[in-house]
Amino acid sequence: MFRCQLRPGLDLRLLEERHAAEVFALVDRDRDYLREWLPWVDATHTEDDTLSFIRSSLERFGSNNGFAAGIWNQGQFCGVIGTHKIDWLNRRVEIGYWLSRESQGQGIVTEACRAIITHAFEELDLHLVDIHCGAGNEKSAAVPKRLGFKLEGTLGEALLLHGVYHDLLVFGMVRPEWKG
Amino acid sequence: MFRCQLRPGLDLRLLEERHAAEVFALVDRDRDYLREWLPWVDATHTEDDTLSFIRSSLERFGSNNGFAAGIWNQGQFCGVIGTHKIDWLNRRVEIGYWLSRESQGQGIVTEACRAIITHAFEELDLHLVDIHCGAGNEKSAAVPKRLGFKLEGTLGEALLLHGVYHDLLVFGMVRPEWKG
Amino acid sequence: MFRCQLRPGLDLRLLEERHAAEVFALVDRDRDYLREWLPWVDATHTEDDTLSFIRSSLERFGSNNGFAAGIWNQGQFCGVIGTHKIDWLNRRVEIGYWLSRESQGQGIVTEACRAIITHAFEELDLHLVDIHCGAGNEKSAAVPKRLGFKLEGTLGEALLLHGVYHDLLVFGMVRPEWKG
Amino acid sequence: MFRCQLRPGLDLRLLEERHAAEVFALVDRDRDYLREWLPWVDATHTEDDTLSFIRSSLERFGSNNGFAAGIWNQGQFCGVIGTHKIDWLNRRVEIGYWLSRESQGQGIVTEACRAIITHAFEELDLHLVDIHCGAGNEKSAAVPKRLGFKLEGTLGEALLLHGVYHDLLVFGMVRPEWKG
Amino acid sequence: MFRCQLRPGLDLRLLEERHAAEVFALVDRDRDYLREWLPWVDATHTEDDTLSFIRSSLERFGSNNGFAAGIWNQGQFCGVIGTHKIDWLNRRVEIGYWLSRESQGQGIVTEACRAIITHAFEELDLHLVDIHCGAGNEKSAAVPKRLGFKLEGTLGEALLLHGVYHDLLVFGMVRPEWKG
Amino acid sequence: MFRCQLRPGLDLRLLEERHAAEVFALVDRDRDYLREWLPWVDATHTEDDTLSFIRSSLERFGSNNGFAAGIWNQGQFCGVIGTHKIDWLNRRVEIGYWLSRESQGQGIVTEACRAIITHAFEELDLHLVDIHCGAGNEKSAAVPKRLGFKLEGTLGEALLLHGVYHDLLVFGMVRPEWKG
Repeated sequence: MFRCQLRPGLDLRLLEERHAAEVFALVDRDRDYLREWLPWVDATHTEDDTLSFIRSSLERFGSNNGFAAGIWNQGQFCGVIGTHKIDWLNRRVEIGYWLSRESQGQGIVTEACRAIITHAFEELDLHLVDIHCGAGNEKSAAVPKRLGFKLEGTLGEALLLHGVYHDLLVFGMVRPEWKG
Repeated sequence: MFRCQLRPGLDLRLLEERHAAEVFALVDRDRDYLREWLPWVDATHTEDDTLSFIRSSLERFGSNNGFAAGIWNQGQFCGVIGTHKIDWLNRRVEIGYWLSRESQGQGIVTEACRAIITHAFEELDLHLVDIHCGAGNEKSAAVPKRLGFKLEGTLGEALLLHGVYHDLLVFGMVRPEWKG
Repeated sequence: MFRCQLRPGLDLRLLEERHAAEVFALVDRDRDYLREWLPWVDATHTEDDTLSFIRSSLERFGSNNGFAAGIWNQGQFCGVIGTHKIDWLNRRVEIGYWLSRESQGQGIVTEACRAIITHAFEELDLHLVDIHCGAGNEKSAAVPKRLGFKLEGTLGEALLLHGVYHDLLVFGMVRPEWKG
Repeated sequence: MFRCQLRPGLDLRLLEERHAAEVFALVDRDRDYLREWLPWVDATHTEDDTLSFIRSSLERFGSNNGFAAGIWNQGQFCGVIGTHKIDWLNRRVEIGYWLSRESQGQGIVTEACRAIITHAFEELDLHLVDIHCGAGNEKSAAVPKRLGFKLEGTLGEALLLHGVYHDLLVFGMVRPEWKG
Repeated sequence: MFRCQLRPGLDLRLLEERHAAEVFALVDRDRDYLREWLPWVDATHTEDDTLSFIRSSLERFGSNNGFAAGIWNQGQFCGVIGTHKIDWLNRRVEIGYWLSRESQGQGIVTEACRAIITHAFEELDLHLVDIHCGAGNEKSAAVPKRLGFKLEGTLGEALLLHGVYHDLLVFGMVRPEWKG
Repeated sequence: MFRCQLRPGLDLRLLEERHAAEVFALVDRDRDYLREWLPWVDATHTEDDTLSFIRSSLERFGSNNGFAAGIWNQGQFCGVIGTHKIDWLNRRVEIGYWLSRESQGQGIVTEACRAIITHAFEELDLHLVDIHCGAGNEKSAAVPKRLGFKLEGTLGEALLLHGVYHDLLVFGMVRPEWKG
């Protein structure tokens, strides 16, 4: 029942156990598409793997260390967005996301990031939000660019996909520069 | 960032650690008013006690066993509503709530219950929702009555308040009879 | 080695891991009989399920929150009786029990309840003991009636058995009225 | 409510949280007497220390690894007896005990050991029971001697009391030689 | 007793509970010097804080997720070096370190890093090692430079020191380029 | 990377998860040889059993309660040596070990014990080290004899091997008598 409305018909909900079937079904359907840039896809074999991910995300949420939210578009589950473990000492957090193939091109992830960034700065009082994208993953990198993030560096060979190491682009946004 | 809007300006949010100060401050301010019908008030001495309550509620939420939400009215925290541990075997749950003195009389708890009951029946697929009220607590009992609950019985001397045992009214609503 | 003698040849023992085989064997043998009124029977498939029940009961006992005891009649295991999580704040507890088909009619559960109720009032200093019985389960309801409990109410459709919801009778006994 | 009657008026009960005050009071009263041979007495400062001991004993009991029981004589708590962690691989266990000063000389510990040894051999199917006594602690060593244990060896300087190392006598009884 | 000798008289040892006093004493002595670039120093008030750090590091080690080692020079404890949580999916790890003021300038941290990097690549089969240094912390940045790391980027305002945000330099070394 | 060098080419390393395959392979290869005197061999069926042993040893290490180390001879894993749970109250600890068949006769275990005993007395400040050997296990008993331990007693039928109970020799060494 707890949601974060992004625009009419589009909202985020904390992932709970009862969403596992829906989430796994989409990962499984879009497996070929998603695995191109997401290292965890090949390790997700069954709904139980998705359930483990949800449970550990809820545990993280419960200990004040970030969360994983599902994205629902017109009532259809279409992707996940969330934050990694929060670095409270330096007031930083990293956002990660994925979206189904058919939901691309509608600005969905951009809207979702916008909500999370505003939440991070205003409600959590954090100072820096990072987004990491595999070099070459244009769709993913378009999100921080569109939101005004600065490219801070390229971590060489920091992403392992199907046995090949890829560079990782690191984008950052600090609170004073956030336009919302 | 996750909310359940009840009406414009009124919403529920899962209680998180960072709300502890706000919640405790209200309990402390309305201590005399709240302790009349709530046995836990006298055991809530410091913000740490509230933090413990929030943490155990988040743990409960993370294990798919109910939640505690704060009620915010025009941006002001004004009460708590939530569910006890869910009885999945029999598909039952009990709702509990409290509201600050000054927020009484605006139908806030009734709206909040309505949202939770609909959630329980439609999203959690439960069958029965209970509400327990101390006999004599008219304000509290008005909520289930207004929502069409049936009085199912009176548990004799089941509520201990300041050394005196009070009867407890048990109200119930089953899914087929819920008008929403 | 720790027992609670009810009468010569009849005693209660805290259930321990080593009893799992004996307990499961009886559940399995009387499966048809027991499932009529006990919602957990259909979810008890193997001795491991019984072991889980015993372990969680011992954990409950270790945290001062009730227990599960086996009933032995002439050295034969014949049923289980115990308490749910204790409500220390209101000093209430609920007793639950089941008995094998062939051990019916000998007053065994009544004796066992008597011992637990006395323990609850005198050793644990509780104030109220509840017993819940499915409406229509005459054998079960005979126990609190025989012990002088008062029928406090009927929780409509609070018990789910094989897809059908049944009413639940709630009986209560407060300490000042207990004759022992 | 669970007891092991040793003789009329004398019984063992699993130690539970609610016994902490009673147990600590006796340790505190007989502190000078008990610390002569028991290394843990000086580390028991408050009732909370006793509570910790009881909780860890209950956890041990819950994981099928031995227990701690109180001894009640004519309704008065007078000592503790229990087993260490059970060595299931070799089917061995060690018994430990202490008794208040004024309860000495009545054969209480001997009776209690007898019950535990019989339990270990018959209910737990163990093969060997050990009892360790500080060299020079005649009262303690009298117990295994009276019960027919064999002195198996002397562990040199294995017991530390107030900064001085004492030898430890190891007594053993194997199942085939137990007369009960 | 387990060490990693860097050169005669200089070695690393896994930090254990018994080292807490020694570690805290040095942090406390060099507090002014260390807090300039280390955000955790101001949160380390007592030996108990150091003990918590050591315990959580041992837990991390036990779950195969990195470690914290002390550096001993001529038998004197002089600093800490270790790894953050390992990213097994992408085979990456980050090294962190600090050294007492008087131990500077002897190549100690460089030697220690060399040992850990070789361990990461050869024993753990990782692919990438990162080192993060506050922009302006020349001493710290000299280490990865001397070891041939590449500067991969600058994370803007990612380090919070006494209320001021500093940029963070990220240096990286991949396995194929490591000369040992 | 943390080692305890016994002599050139021979060292001890804390067992970590990544060693499980190597350890299990040796147990499995020497199964017939090892099971003669080690009760746990028959319960070690797969690499997962070895992994469980390693994990519980690391947990013990992390809580300051002893450790399990592998022995590497010329880079080949050849056995395990470690300590049981430490008795801090009496400052005692027991050492246990096993070695592959082909590594016998080179004084390996004697050297390893020497290092652990010195560590126990000098770094952990313990007072007594015990070694237990099955009566008749000449190879194992030769180790404490060679190191100057005293035979302190024989625990009758304290070791269960393939259904037969064997006596257990207890050897002890106190700190003042240790020559190193």
